[in-house]
Amino acid sequence: MDSIYEPPILTVDSIIFQLVDNELAVLLLERAAEPFKGMWALPGGYNAAGETTREAMARTLATKTGLQTGDLPLIEQLYTFDTIARDPRGHAVSVTYMGLGKDLELPPSATAQNPQFFPVDQLPTVAYDHADIIGYAHRRLCSKITYTNAVFALLPELFTLTQLQTAYEAILGRQLDKRNFRKKFLSLELIEATDEYHRDGAHRPALLYRFRQQPLQVLSRSFD
Amino acid sequence: MDSIYEPPILTVDSIIFQLVDNELAVLLLERAAEPFKGMWALPGGYNAAGETTREAMARTLATKTGLQTGDLPLIEQLYTFDTIARDPRGHAVSVTYMGLGKDLELPPSATAQNPQFFPVDQLPTVAYDHADIIGYAHRRLCSKITYTNAVFALLPELFTLTQLQTAYEAILGRQLDKRNFRKKFLSLELIEATDEYHRDGAHRPALLYRFRQQPLQVLSRSFD
Repeated sequence: MDSIYEPPILTVDSIIFQLVDNELAVLLLERAAEPFKGMWALPGGYNAAGETTREAMARTLATKTGLQTGDLPLIEQLYTFDTIARDPRGHAVSVTYMGLGKDLELPPSATAQNPQFFPVDQLPTVAYDHADIIGYAHRRLCSKITYTNAVFALLPELFTLTQLQTAYEAILGRQLDKRNFRKKFLSLELIEATDEYHRDGAHRPALLYRFRQQPLQVLSRSFD
Repeated sequence: MDSIYEPPILTVDSIIFQLVDNELAVLLLERAAEPFKGMWALPGGYNAAGETTREAMARTLATKTGLQTGDLPLIEQLYTFDTIARDPRGHAVSVTYMGLGKDLELPPSATAQNPQFFPVDQLPTVAYDHADIIGYAHRRLCSKITYTNAVFALLPELFTLTQLQTAYEAILGRQLDKRNFRKKFLSLELIEATDEYHRDGAHRPALLYRFRQQPLQVLSRSFD
């Protein structure tokens, strides 16, 4: 390698989504130091030589939030963000990972950085280019749920069609027509009915469904 | 930043596909120096601080092959490869870009590295982890053509349904049933008939089609 070559800083950042009170929410930390002290940021950190980006992601997530990647039914590399000015301390290239989970509990004493889930449409003031990264991840998720079974990672093992539709509406940020949603989703053959029912006081018992396959399944068109 | 922090080397690599004689082909260079001297590798190189990965990709592609990113109707970030042992000179993280083009001409005197397109199923001996990267890009392309109009970037502006099917077969590596392919593809409403015909001696003139939209269009399911 040329001796005058100077690489950018390499960092990793995690965009962890779950549903909270029927809203799509993202995990943020309160920054305890400059730059952007007091603002909120994605969990992440430096990636040194000798560590893969996935290892660095798992390490920083565990250290800063107490979450283990094993808690997340789906996690995958999202995109690498690299604009020169995104970190005031110098050119830092960030490899990002998107993770989806459910009922994620944050150990209260995990860190001093106050990890919390915020609804994606009510974010606090966010540091760096993290609002852009969250927006990118949200758009990717909106797209991904239309051609994969990714939503399984946000739902319990067994769920009603109402829960499923609510998850789609939370991600897409709009209401869907109940009859069309059920018809179109069932035609994808991603889920199957169980012989169990969800019982909820005043309502008629609702049939519970489950995904036929986990992990991720891509709905490819076959053309033949 | 901590003074003992040492980042990995950052590199970029380009996976440039086009159709050559009805086969999917990828652009490779012959390595003139160690490591892997005499083997074939993707065009790429170091990414220094102060340069975005896309800038580094455009620079290395132009320098090493004579191609400009403007020659490619579709180019997008693919994935970041980061295993520790992928480069014997030290931990190098590579941000990769996949580009699609047609009738790409390589200036003969571009470099001493002998850039050439090779059919993806008849690759020469490939350096580093580049065979894995090409395989990943090929799988992504196979998937992408089932939910986007990406194949537009490999075809001429106007094309026959036979040309379209041949492109799909070249990418997927298998024959498709003509009647089913036409029926299913036309139902996606990605292309429209023109009032022009392709005339080829002995054959009946074939109607020419074009894509309704460029650039990339994603076939999202709407669920309502």
